[in-house]
Amino acid sequence: MSAPHTTTIQVRFRDIDSMDHVNSAVYVTYLEQARSAFFRDVLDERLDRVDTVIARQEIEYRRPIDLGDAVRVDLEVARLGESSVTMAYEVYANDELAATAESVQVAYDRETERSRPLPTAWRERLSAYDRSE
Amino acid sequence: MSAPHTTTIQVRFRDIDSMDHVNSAVYVTYLEQARSAFFRDVLDERLDRVDTVIARQEIEYRRPIDLGDAVRVDLEVARLGESSVTMAYEVYANDELAATAESVQVAYDRETERSRPLPTAWRERLSAYDRSE
Amino acid sequence: MSAPHTTTIQVRFRDIDSMDHVNSAVYVTYLEQARSAFFRDVLDERLDRVDTVIARQEIEYRRPIDLGDAVRVDLEVARLGESSVTMAYEVYANDELAATAESVQVAYDRETERSRPLPTAWRERLSAYDRSE
Amino acid sequence: MSAPHTTTIQVRFRDIDSMDHVNSAVYVTYLEQARSAFFRDVLDERLDRVDTVIARQEIEYRRPIDLGDAVRVDLEVARLGESSVTMAYEVYANDELAATAESVQVAYDRETERSRPLPTAWRERLSAYDRSE
Repeated sequence: MSAPHTTTIQVRFRDIDSMDHVNSAVYVTYLEQARSAFFRDVLDERLDRVDTVIARQEIEYRRPIDLGDAVRVDLEVARLGESSVTMAYEVYANDELAATAESVQVAYDRETERSRPLPTAWRERLSAYDRSE
Repeated sequence: MSAPHTTTIQVRFRDIDSMDHVNSAVYVTYLEQARSAFFRDVLDERLDRVDTVIARQEIEYRRPIDLGDAVRVDLEVARLGESSVTMAYEVYANDELAATAESVQVAYDRETERSRPLPTAWRERLSAYDRSE
Repeated sequence: MSAPHTTTIQVRFRDIDSMDHVNSAVYVTYLEQARSAFFRDVLDERLDRVDTVIARQEIEYRRPIDLGDAVRVDLEVARLGESSVTMAYEVYANDELAATAESVQVAYDRETERSRPLPTAWRERLSAYDRSE
Repeated sequence: MSAPHTTTIQVRFRDIDSMDHVNSAVYVTYLEQARSAFFRDVLDERLDRVDTVIARQEIEYRRPIDLGDAVRVDLEVARLGESSVTMAYEVYANDELAATAESVQVAYDRETERSRPLPTAWRERLSAYDRSE
């Protein structure tokens, strides 16, 4: 049972919308930021250099996030498929759960424009963050 | 059986990320733009003036959106609850389905910080876009 | 004396910040959107495919822009240099001047990482929008 | 001669545009983030609670900023007027100067919609960061 991968997020003035809280779409940017850090830290890859696409995302909003809040995103692997990985996220603001989320990311072959198996080198490293194990 | 509410979206250069397609979080901004137009057109309300919160969103990405694409979002009401409305979205790029999505939006009372019934004035107008009817 | 090139901007809910007006950085995105449309319409180029960089921008804010405002950006060429073009922008909200701005954009050679002369094919078309002529 | 106020910026995947560098409008968001931190740290104010408007901004871009870069913004006071403060910014990426910028911010009276003198409490604290002294 491993600990999740954690990314600290700097809340920006620009993240706040006219409702005075972090905008709902910006949470998705926070997830992406966590995923980008996970790819760098765990897979030794740049998210903008790998051939994957986001196929699905869902997010549950639990409480608003404000400008001064200390935000972090905890990331675990929820499911490892043949060609896809489902990541599970918990977004915390001042140590209170602000959102939970999942993303399904699919490896694909740019040439054939079809999905391809996840790289073997990734599979072991991803498994280390699999919360079901 | 009513037609969905439609919002045309202007794709911006800034919406494109380093993968050369519209960024996955920006789709959520497109949904919000459609919701904002729906509130204005159908409910005669400003989205930033009403006491509601987004409780949940999910989105399935079907195909990438590019800079020159003509984008529109079709919006219907999927479910009308006591204090919540679930909206269903179809995002089209050049008339091809690019994403489907749902959002759950809850009316709340700012004083008590609890959910409250949807305003009666909204219910009838929302029903007119209920795709289950 | 030519008319400026005009781009209509769709103000988004997301453009509004906690001060209830369009955020000051978003004006710069509006300028970019106008520049992108100008490149497409006048130079028959995609802004993300040409080798140019923005060297300088300045903007004067005249009045706030609100969610419902009808916004357009008028673009003219202020100066044509050997390897740079200075564009002048007027941002209108409901036909009132909301901002004026300038950008200096430099053509460069990706190989040598130095500036290069503006393409000849551009020069004539850019001249047609030169407000000093 | 005081040291400038410094704000560390977390570069986001979303900040990068299709040119593979931080987008030119995002620099302006970095300036705002620095200004917001300065108001909190030095003036003990929230930028979204004070009655000021940005009247003018200019920015010179010196070098591109990439996803992995360590970015900071140094902020000094360039000029203190009766009702306005001009801030000067230096944006560093990996300790190299990436941009210089200035903003003119005006205190105004929400009732009369006119400029008003800078609060006395601010003036002394702002002076401590005045680079001309």
